[in-house]
Amino acid sequence: MTIAAQMLDTYPLDLGGIDKQKLLTCIDACVECAQACTACSDADLSEEMVADLRKCIRSCLDCADVCGATWRVLSRHTAYDANVTRAVLEACATTCKACGDECERHAHMHEHCRICAEVCRRCEQACRDLLGSLG
Amino acid sequence: MTIAAQMLDTYPLDLGGIDKQKLLTCIDACVECAQACTACSDADLSEEMVADLRKCIRSCLDCADVCGATWRVLSRHTAYDANVTRAVLEACATTCKACGDECERHAHMHEHCRICAEVCRRCEQACRDLLGSLG
Amino acid sequence: MTIAAQMLDTYPLDLGGIDKQKLLTCIDACVECAQACTACSDADLSEEMVADLRKCIRSCLDCADVCGATWRVLSRHTAYDANVTRAVLEACATTCKACGDECERHAHMHEHCRICAEVCRRCEQACRDLLGSLG
Amino acid sequence: MTIAAQMLDTYPLDLGGIDKQKLLTCIDACVECAQACTACSDADLSEEMVADLRKCIRSCLDCADVCGATWRVLSRHTAYDANVTRAVLEACATTCKACGDECERHAHMHEHCRICAEVCRRCEQACRDLLGSLG
Repeated sequence: MTIAAQMLDTYPLDLGGIDKQKLLTCIDACVECAQACTACSDADLSEEMVADLRKCIRSCLDCADVCGATWRVLSRHTAYDANVTRAVLEACATTCKACGDECERHAHMHEHCRICAEVCRRCEQACRDLLGSLG
Repeated sequence: MTIAAQMLDTYPLDLGGIDKQKLLTCIDACVECAQACTACSDADLSEEMVADLRKCIRSCLDCADVCGATWRVLSRHTAYDANVTRAVLEACATTCKACGDECERHAHMHEHCRICAEVCRRCEQACRDLLGSLG
Repeated sequence: MTIAAQMLDTYPLDLGGIDKQKLLTCIDACVECAQACTACSDADLSEEMVADLRKCIRSCLDCADVCGATWRVLSRHTAYDANVTRAVLEACATTCKACGDECERHAHMHEHCRICAEVCRRCEQACRDLLGSLG
Repeated sequence: MTIAAQMLDTYPLDLGGIDKQKLLTCIDACVECAQACTACSDADLSEEMVADLRKCIRSCLDCADVCGATWRVLSRHTAYDANVTRAVLEACATTCKACGDECERHAHMHEHCRICAEVCRRCEQACRDLLGSLG
């Protein structure tokens, strides 16, 4: 059981109908994606062909920032606002898709991009699954 | 001329058709809103009636995080991705509206909420203006 | 093998003598602590006795922010600067200690504080272990 | 009067002996530096000679993250903890010095580095001034 799961389990109030498993999966995916994208942007920067990876670096930095804001919003439940959650999840899914697409283009050359692309896909899916469950 | 304006003026490449003044106004508004919301959440926490301000604290923390991700995305122009910018601006406008509405409810009692509400309104508008100009 | 470990393994350059296992443990601990502290601050906010938890909420928010900056700095290795790493790790250890102490005071009443205190202790230790290995 | 100054003026409690003007100067400097460093890292990325600016990009990203955590900690006053504030200010001054030094090396070639170096110097000084006043 991850720490995020334990924190969710010990939350003092009802979560107001949100799908707990999908919420947890999404928090974990965003946390993982924020770290992977930060690391991937720096690995890109270390490559000899850095000039060809400019767009990839930017996509990763954007994705790290948006995933970072998303898991923070999702980790708060007090007086939960579905409009905000929905808008943030939409932005996160869009950003993860853009970053996943970009990293995938370099996946055959850079193993860090291959891993990062997979993490972005998983995070995009987790955002969409949670969005779908919000009704 | 603010530092953000100077940084934008010295950017080595063309900004790709984005409205420079609206971009700058939006970056400045998001930076200001992130700080104001962080300060307002803590001022709420100091109020005797903190129990009545739970939703306000959470809205401010969410808004600070989303504005923080937004100005970071907007401050990057290399290989700019309009889909990401648009989704992030939508999320930011929605979050600022929610926080502005919530702070406004306490504006008559707490001066920090009155100021914060105004800052949120201004930031929401700046996001919508920039969104409108993206076509 | 976590994603952070995979990203570290596929980094294109040498890590310059840093202890890879301690670095990884510290990145993972900071990521976990940032999330746990964000969740704990919100759980505190939901408690009936929120007025007694003001200091705990603030400590958790500070700790989440400092851990968040720390894992981001640690996830970058390009042209690594030991002075910066050291200063950031010192700040993170201090902040984790303060938050661990505060959460521990409420651990007997709030399970989320008990878990969060443990996570903070682990993160403080991971920062100190990495600091020690930097020489 | 900036918004940060207005928020500080409407804070419900006493600030506990902290020098209000130095605090405000430091918050404003950290906010400005976080934005300038984010913009400078992206401007570096757009330069033809990006391969020579790797260290500068990383320094700017680190500085943006540490300044971002610092102004957030400084914007909270509830149950203020001098140990945490001190450690965070030390880390911020060190990171600003490293980034200012690095940007200065490119200041003659890149106007954005020249501006960013100045902003980093100002922020480092503001952190040291506030540190000095904490006793």
